[in-house]
Amino acid sequence: MRRLRMGMIGGGPGSFIGGVHRLAAEMDRRIELVAGAFSSDPARSRAAGESYRIDPARAYDSYQEMFAAERLRDDPIDFVAVVTPNHLHLPATAAALAASFPVMSDKPMTATLDEARELAALVQATGVTYRLTYTYTGYPLVREMRQLIASGALGAIRKVVVEYAQGWLAEPLERAGNKQAEWRADPAQSGLGGCIGDIGVHAFNLAEFVTGQRVTRICADLNSMVTGRRLDDDCNVLLRFANGAPGVLIASQISVGERNGLRLRVYGETGAVHWQQENPNTLTIDTIDGRTEVRHAASGLLGADALAVTRVPTGHPEGYLEAFANLYADFAALLAGETTAPLLPDAAEGLRAMGFISTAVTSNAAGGGWTDLAL
Amino acid sequence: MRRLRMGMIGGGPGSFIGGVHRLAAEMDRRIELVAGAFSSDPARSRAAGESYRIDPARAYDSYQEMFAAERLRDDPIDFVAVVTPNHLHLPATAAALAASFPVMSDKPMTATLDEARELAALVQATGVTYRLTYTYTGYPLVREMRQLIASGALGAIRKVVVEYAQGWLAEPLERAGNKQAEWRADPAQSGLGGCIGDIGVHAFNLAEFVTGQRVTRICADLNSMVTGRRLDDDCNVLLRFANGAPGVLIASQISVGERNGLRLRVYGETGAVHWQQENPNTLTIDTIDGRTEVRHAASGLLGADALAVTRVPTGHPEGYLEAFANLYADFAALLAGETTAPLLPDAAEGLRAMGFISTAVTSNAAGGGWTDLAL
Amino acid sequence: MRRLRMGMIGGGPGSFIGGVHRLAAEMDRRIELVAGAFSSDPARSRAAGESYRIDPARAYDSYQEMFAAERLRDDPIDFVAVVTPNHLHLPATAAALAASFPVMSDKPMTATLDEARELAALVQATGVTYRLTYTYTGYPLVREMRQLIASGALGAIRKVVVEYAQGWLAEPLERAGNKQAEWRADPAQSGLGGCIGDIGVHAFNLAEFVTGQRVTRICADLNSMVTGRRLDDDCNVLLRFANGAPGVLIASQISVGERNGLRLRVYGETGAVHWQQENPNTLTIDTIDGRTEVRHAASGLLGADALAVTRVPTGHPEGYLEAFANLYADFAALLAGETTAPLLPDAAEGLRAMGFISTAVTSNAAGGGWTDLAL
Amino acid sequence: MRRLRMGMIGGGPGSFIGGVHRLAAEMDRRIELVAGAFSSDPARSRAAGESYRIDPARAYDSYQEMFAAERLRDDPIDFVAVVTPNHLHLPATAAALAASFPVMSDKPMTATLDEARELAALVQATGVTYRLTYTYTGYPLVREMRQLIASGALGAIRKVVVEYAQGWLAEPLERAGNKQAEWRADPAQSGLGGCIGDIGVHAFNLAEFVTGQRVTRICADLNSMVTGRRLDDDCNVLLRFANGAPGVLIASQISVGERNGLRLRVYGETGAVHWQQENPNTLTIDTIDGRTEVRHAASGLLGADALAVTRVPTGHPEGYLEAFANLYADFAALLAGETTAPLLPDAAEGLRAMGFISTAVTSNAAGGGWTDLAL
Repeated sequence: MRRLRMGMIGGGPGSFIGGVHRLAAEMDRRIELVAGAFSSDPARSRAAGESYRIDPARAYDSYQEMFAAERLRDDPIDFVAVVTPNHLHLPATAAALAASFPVMSDKPMTATLDEARELAALVQATGVTYRLTYTYTGYPLVREMRQLIASGALGAIRKVVVEYAQGWLAEPLERAGNKQAEWRADPAQSGLGGCIGDIGVHAFNLAEFVTGQRVTRICADLNSMVTGRRLDDDCNVLLRFANGAPGVLIASQISVGERNGLRLRVYGETGAVHWQQENPNTLTIDTIDGRTEVRHAASGLLGADALAVTRVPTGHPEGYLEAFANLYADFAALLAGETTAPLLPDAAEGLRAMGFISTAVTSNAAGGGWTDLAL
Repeated sequence: MRRLRMGMIGGGPGSFIGGVHRLAAEMDRRIELVAGAFSSDPARSRAAGESYRIDPARAYDSYQEMFAAERLRDDPIDFVAVVTPNHLHLPATAAALAASFPVMSDKPMTATLDEARELAALVQATGVTYRLTYTYTGYPLVREMRQLIASGALGAIRKVVVEYAQGWLAEPLERAGNKQAEWRADPAQSGLGGCIGDIGVHAFNLAEFVTGQRVTRICADLNSMVTGRRLDDDCNVLLRFANGAPGVLIASQISVGERNGLRLRVYGETGAVHWQQENPNTLTIDTIDGRTEVRHAASGLLGADALAVTRVPTGHPEGYLEAFANLYADFAALLAGETTAPLLPDAAEGLRAMGFISTAVTSNAAGGGWTDLAL
Repeated sequence: MRRLRMGMIGGGPGSFIGGVHRLAAEMDRRIELVAGAFSSDPARSRAAGESYRIDPARAYDSYQEMFAAERLRDDPIDFVAVVTPNHLHLPATAAALAASFPVMSDKPMTATLDEARELAALVQATGVTYRLTYTYTGYPLVREMRQLIASGALGAIRKVVVEYAQGWLAEPLERAGNKQAEWRADPAQSGLGGCIGDIGVHAFNLAEFVTGQRVTRICADLNSMVTGRRLDDDCNVLLRFANGAPGVLIASQISVGERNGLRLRVYGETGAVHWQQENPNTLTIDTIDGRTEVRHAASGLLGADALAVTRVPTGHPEGYLEAFANLYADFAALLAGETTAPLLPDAAEGLRAMGFISTAVTSNAAGGGWTDLAL
Repeated sequence: MRRLRMGMIGGGPGSFIGGVHRLAAEMDRRIELVAGAFSSDPARSRAAGESYRIDPARAYDSYQEMFAAERLRDDPIDFVAVVTPNHLHLPATAAALAASFPVMSDKPMTATLDEARELAALVQATGVTYRLTYTYTGYPLVREMRQLIASGALGAIRKVVVEYAQGWLAEPLERAGNKQAEWRADPAQSGLGGCIGDIGVHAFNLAEFVTGQRVTRICADLNSMVTGRRLDDDCNVLLRFANGAPGVLIASQISVGERNGLRLRVYGETGAVHWQQENPNTLTIDTIDGRTEVRHAASGLLGADALAVTRVPTGHPEGYLEAFANLYADFAALLAGETTAPLLPDAAEGLRAMGFISTAVTSNAAGGGWTDLAL
């Protein structure tokens, strides 16, 4: 069976996430990067193509050109990965869908909720496959938590605490030439949300993914703690889930000493689970009889969902790149018609997350207080 | 130098905290339990006296009787420890102050904010020494955090996350004959707050103690997750500190698998500290240069405040009882005139904590939203 | 019931362990320090008496004087605690036994194996109660491990790894005026073993205590890594247990960064346990089905032996002082005739440990190789 | 720049390590698997080729056939990966060297020390590039430890403790149809060492790699704890390094509950480092001033060697596959003439490791005692 051919939009020199998509997509040898419109600057696009070691003829000046040229080949790309800054997600994805290329998009869906609604409508209208890389849903033990909860092992969910703590924006890096900080701190490129849209949305998505519960109301406190910053860099949000359970979502990019501190705790009537992204190969499971279990990645005790995305024996740590690759493994299987990839976030999930960002910004701007989640 | 003589009010059979006060008070041989009105039931008071191995003649039927009898002795008690349920804190303490006996009271100060105001006024009017056992302020590494922050080592405080998670009330133990659960779940004995008054108040006190910052506004979400429970058992509160820094306070007694999970993280401009009560002998210090230090209890790197309350060499773990004993060590030194015991919580701290409980309950009852802290 | 009266031999100014014995003995209010011959220097003995706040008349110039005087009192001491440097253990204990005072001795039993044999014979001849404070056997979770293994929960023991790592002697403190280092580094006060006698012996005792298996042969490598040091400061010993299981014992006082790193792992046919003294409130239990359990101190899941020496609810950490106090609790119950205190190390255990030290030194001096344990 | 073309010898259906070599080699897009003699059974070799999605024409029946066919192509393989059971390492590698194909070999070098000597001579005689995948030397923080020690940050090395604990062979899986267990437990396929050759050798290599010190003498205790097993499954070895420092090496495959527990601690005069493979993204560094630092993977504080093999920002965990890929990255750069790949284990390292296995087996068979390392 041949490998699927991937084209990339974005991911040029200086991009971190482009290389991650490439590596993740190719890890299991079901997908191969063969083309790209890596930058709106043709020279930079070509340079990126070289660094990816692809055929120079397939490093295009624009995604429009890529779509036009690839359609004429015997071995055209099978899909595109969209890894641009947020404000380009909509136009690039819309063009791909119009050209009938399936899309694997980086998160968030778009820069604004209105754009997201427009895109969701396009996805539905075209019927072209569209999925998003909410990376952390790819970790085996995240899927284990989800399966455990779905199986009723914790009883009804009573409380959720989800945190995503980083410290790298504790200083105004966006004014010190840091490219990653620049676009994130610029409302024109990022949208209305700063930290809430960059990482808060991962926490939101993770909480819903794992619990299978929808958030219905939130009470948000967004702050910009670094002088002169135009977007929020610290977020604290009270949550209410559909079943009435309370929750807390904490996201921050000014928490000095935190690296990529995504942590989730879910407490149910009869059990609880704890997981941390920086130490992703163990999962703590507490039960109401006082027992604490540490469940190990790749252990034979894991459910089918976790084992399906496990590559190495227990004790051989997998990490971020493997989690990311699991999303592409799902996507490849989906395109191959082997599965419906029920765990892979789709437009509906993308839209919910945009609603969360929008509601958090609105609720905060109005002085706080409980607000229904806009969708 | 002779040992100080302690009388106890409360702490009868079935009490956990009475024995803790006894042990903590006596640990350093500066204080000795010699008398008590351990229960309003004379037989139970005598039984407690026996279990404490005190002179049977000094196990009294009531605190009134104890005060009257002790005044006539050559070797009267030097102070009393008040360890009753919350609703008796005011009358017992008021009687002690009236009889000029200094008081070491368990927290919270009283059952209601009004009572606390009354008691604070009495303390001021009588001039008799009054202090509270906010236990966790006694841990050496808590005092280290406080001293570090006061020294400016973290820069201005930017964010505080404090949690106190327990799971023991995940089931309705108050209807299953559990004495500890019964009084806590009964508004008549506990006051208006359940979890918020029992443990949320510790988290609040700890956050203010360590940061040296006052909380000025809160936005509280209190829930009662166990069917039929009359008081809150899960609390999530957004905080705003006087300097504008945001914070989150999470307290829960229905978090299955949590034991006594008091955890504090304080993020400043240039550094951060993390500490957990269940593993109290290490403190994590992050600095903005990317360095993470684990500082060990009893290490020579500690500041004076921590070392002053350290009994054993590094690597020999101290715990809850030693932390509690540190409060009594401060108290003994205070009564002996050796110190003003600036770290030992007094009526002003007690009153603030009652204001926090009251405001949280009020704010939540009003449907949430930001509310100024009532005092 | 009155408290038992304790006299102390040793424990004068500068002693760490004297204060620990005092505090531990008194923690549960069954014992009270009332007398002592704290130093061979009368002025220092009196100074110590003052610091312990005992009756000045009972701070004696020598243990001979203490025994003579106490016998004449109405309220004589009930037993003595021997906390001198090792080379005085034999004469002080012998005198106490001769005067019919029960003895609680610090470890090791004596300075040499010959002395230990002499003392063991005296204990047997006099019939006076004699026990040793192998501190770490007092930890609740150590007793839990022992009970688990005795119950067969791990199957037959197949491997033991025990380590006791410290770093405080990485520099020649014995030549820098450090009193604790001086006597430990002096063969005349410590005996033939340095690190092996000071802490290796704890590791040995712990391994035998927990597994219920006797060590029968050892192969020892003792080194003195600090130039000029006269006794070993680093020890690595291969073990063979009576049932044929192999083991490794590592003890070091030059392991920079280690504090009081006593750690034990026992692997059986069907399960394993891991425990660390510096984090004593959790125990890890693995089973052959791949399950890892973290068992918490004071948890309801614990066996009777652990719960019997637990003072506070789960989540309230206990530490070194509480472990030490558990030995005195056993001793008090033993003297009161309430129990035979089967878990409290006696002369037989003391003798075995001396045999271990002696054999390790001999085996190493002979160039290594397997040697039967001398007893 | 084109990708290097890799051929594989071994790695057929049921092989774990074949897939790991494929994935690791391709991770950075510098190498591509294009051919293989995956099994001595042609049908199995073809099946493996299909699972790797390579051109069916290049799934060969034998390595002899592969060498012959590839030489005739325009796009021949650039090198081979040897991933067979140990007893085939010598013939397969010898054939590759004879055909002038560079070799990346799985460890250990061969099945016996004599074979290793023969192979080392062949490597020298042919001058063809030969390297081994001692996987754990590829972890960024392992290279950080090595660089720290080489820089003198710990002072002279005084003690090394290295452990490699597994539990998967606690039961006789080799008699239950487990293919991985079968060849490991069979002297004909594995050589004289069981656990010592399978994983002990990793521990040995890691200790020498990190410290830069050679082991000169050992005292080994090898045991076979599972009834009927023909090779050792538990190893405890005392070490002596060239500078006189003592060490301990523990390896076990019957340690129930251990997964892939490779752990290293190195203590120097002024500092120490600790690292664990199962939690590979942090490194603990202790210094003699009492400070404990946790250094994070991908942190800006890392030295050049670690950063050179880091793919993602700090807080994004990398694991086993990335470590393995780092060896191939070194190998690709070596073949491209960009580097001499000084950190990549070569024939000399391979030979030393075989000497270790041989000496351990010999020393143990002779009843233990210190033995010079045979080479």
